Amino acid sequence: MKLLITGGAGFLGSLLARTLLARGTLAGSRIERLVLTDLAPPPAELVADPRVEGRTGALLPQCAALAAERWDGVFHLASAVSAECEADFELGLRSNLDTTRALLDGLRAAGNVPRLVFASSAAVFGGDPPALPVPRLVRDDTLPLPQTSYGTQKLVLEQLLADYTRKGFIDGRAVRLLTVSVRPGRPNGAASGFLSGIIREPLAGQVSVCPVAPETEVALASPARTVAALIAVYEATREAYGGRTALNLPALSVKVADMLAALERVAGPEVRALVRVEPEPRIERIVGTWPARFEAQRAAVLGLQPDPDFEGIVRQYVHEHPQALKVPLRG
Amino acid sequence: MKLLITGGAGFLGSLLARTLLARGTLAGSRIERLVLTDLAPPPAELVADPRVEGRTGALLPQCAALAAERWDGVFHLASAVSAECEADFELGLRSNLDTTRALLDGLRAAGNVPRLVFASSAAVFGGDPPALPVPRLVRDDTLPLPQTSYGTQKLVLEQLLADYTRKGFIDGRAVRLLTVSVRPGRPNGAASGFLSGIIREPLAGQVSVCPVAPETEVALASPARTVAALIAVYEATREAYGGRTALNLPALSVKVADMLAALERVAGPEVRALVRVEPEPRIERIVGTWPARFEAQRAAVLGLQPDPDFEGIVRQYVHEHPQALKVPLRG
Repeated sequence: MKLLITGGAGFLGSLLARTLLARGTLAGSRIERLVLTDLAPPPAELVADPRVEGRTGALLPQCAALAAERWDGVFHLASAVSAECEADFELGLRSNLDTTRALLDGLRAAGNVPRLVFASSAAVFGGDPPALPVPRLVRDDTLPLPQTSYGTQKLVLEQLLADYTRKGFIDGRAVRLLTVSVRPGRPNGAASGFLSGIIREPLAGQVSVCPVAPETEVALASPARTVAALIAVYEATREAYGGRTALNLPALSVKVADMLAALERVAGPEVRALVRVEPEPRIERIVGTWPARFEAQRAAVLGLQPDPDFEGIVRQYVHEHPQALKVPLRG
Repeated sequence: MKLLITGGAGFLGSLLARTLLARGTLAGSRIERLVLTDLAPPPAELVADPRVEGRTGALLPQCAALAAERWDGVFHLASAVSAECEADFELGLRSNLDTTRALLDGLRAAGNVPRLVFASSAAVFGGDPPALPVPRLVRDDTLPLPQTSYGTQKLVLEQLLADYTRKGFIDGRAVRLLTVSVRPGRPNGAASGFLSGIIREPLAGQVSVCPVAPETEVALASPARTVAALIAVYEATREAYGGRTALNLPALSVKVADMLAALERVAGPEVRALVRVEPEPRIERIVGTWPARFEAQRAAVLGLQPDPDFEGIVRQYVHEHPQALKVPLRG
């Protein structure tokens, strides 16, 4: 089979590619070709695989020709992120709305009804006027009320995807990804960045600022569970996926204080002490509108479960990014 | 003030124009100029008013120049209808999605933050898998799940409107219009067409077929209440409008049997007998996914109430369209 991953050089895209290549098959078919599009080239280790081809450059002008290649499956992860879309309204419209529309129209024109998994986001929720009722619980039928252009664009694309699917042009499935923690690499300036930073930076021997009160509850998923969800949604029958509405994922609901306690159990009190809690009202207000709990019944039907605890997530990060560690670990 | 009505030559658009011209003011300002755009020219009696100008032609290519005229207010009613969008997918994308996006981008570029009322539709509801729970009740926080491209496009535009409003580019308000009954004129082929036809055709001395069982409950609004809602939403403060989410309207919930009984009270049993009930499973399935009841609390805050009864709606039609009557009336 021929697979396309847009945003394939990003953190999630390349982890998904690596996972798919290791499996060798998807939905019972052998993966013969895997094309990764992104603004930057994919990691060298991925391109070294004879099945992989990287295509570098903006996606929008490529969409029509790309879609005409008649893919069996597409993971559409490419997206401008939340902070970018707030800073540059037209960038968000172009990179998210126009690009995905062009991709959908291209796939419709190709006529082979490819399966497409779209990375939507829990950022479709927020509230307007803000605030989900305490405890910021989201159910499968909770009304999305985006608070950002990014969330708006994701919600709009979920709806278009559902209609292109209803019309039989594609077999589209949208998954609302959660905040992923622990992300490797550099801070990315997103309001959610600290949810990786307060673990990643101390493990690299660096000070990290936590801008919310320790009792703040957040909803997270590990990189591995996030990629597993994308694959499970791809492989699901339409019946199991259940309708055409975007799928919420099960979340690990955890207090920031418990995240820091897990860090201390893995790396000791000196590493934990590198995190300085300095609440910033602006960030607290934003985080306070995010869902903290998910009752994801449709996802459970697909066998998707939340990460069992945050300590396991820290250990997963430590295991997979030994080069990023600058502190001795315990046990 | 300078007002624009897109779709201003249509039934609702010209009724809105007539109502506004008779009032003379909107939100406390004198209406000095009223431009009506549409594919067809507006009724002659409207263009005869010195405040009115008609512009005929497709809206999409006009949007940028039109929006640059710096309107105080816009009623955006122009839309391809449900049946057209199902029959011609690209027409719906172009006439609804692309045109409204171009209008919003034009108004954003104009920079004067005009107030804009967008005619969305209760067609955003439907269910996926279909069917609202009995009694097909919609609340202000009911999750829209469109069953048509038209409903999808309306929902998408509601979301874009909300985001353009959040960003301060326009002061946008979306109203989900209900099935309007009794519409004058010819049958329009819409699945909902019979909800006007079973009153209008018998009053014109013609046979009409009712394609659903008499006990079917539907949600309706009269033309006058629909136009009043558009004006009330325009005139509301943002606080009274309440957030940025599209507004549901209060509906008259009525059984088809009671609509026919009202017709008989107004026009007698011979006229009622011109309606032949011949249920069509295809139409019954569609109508069975439509909301039948609305609990519209936000609309109530704006003082909007449903039509009190269907007999009043029939009498309103009879009063306003005497030339369409071919039968003697009672009382």
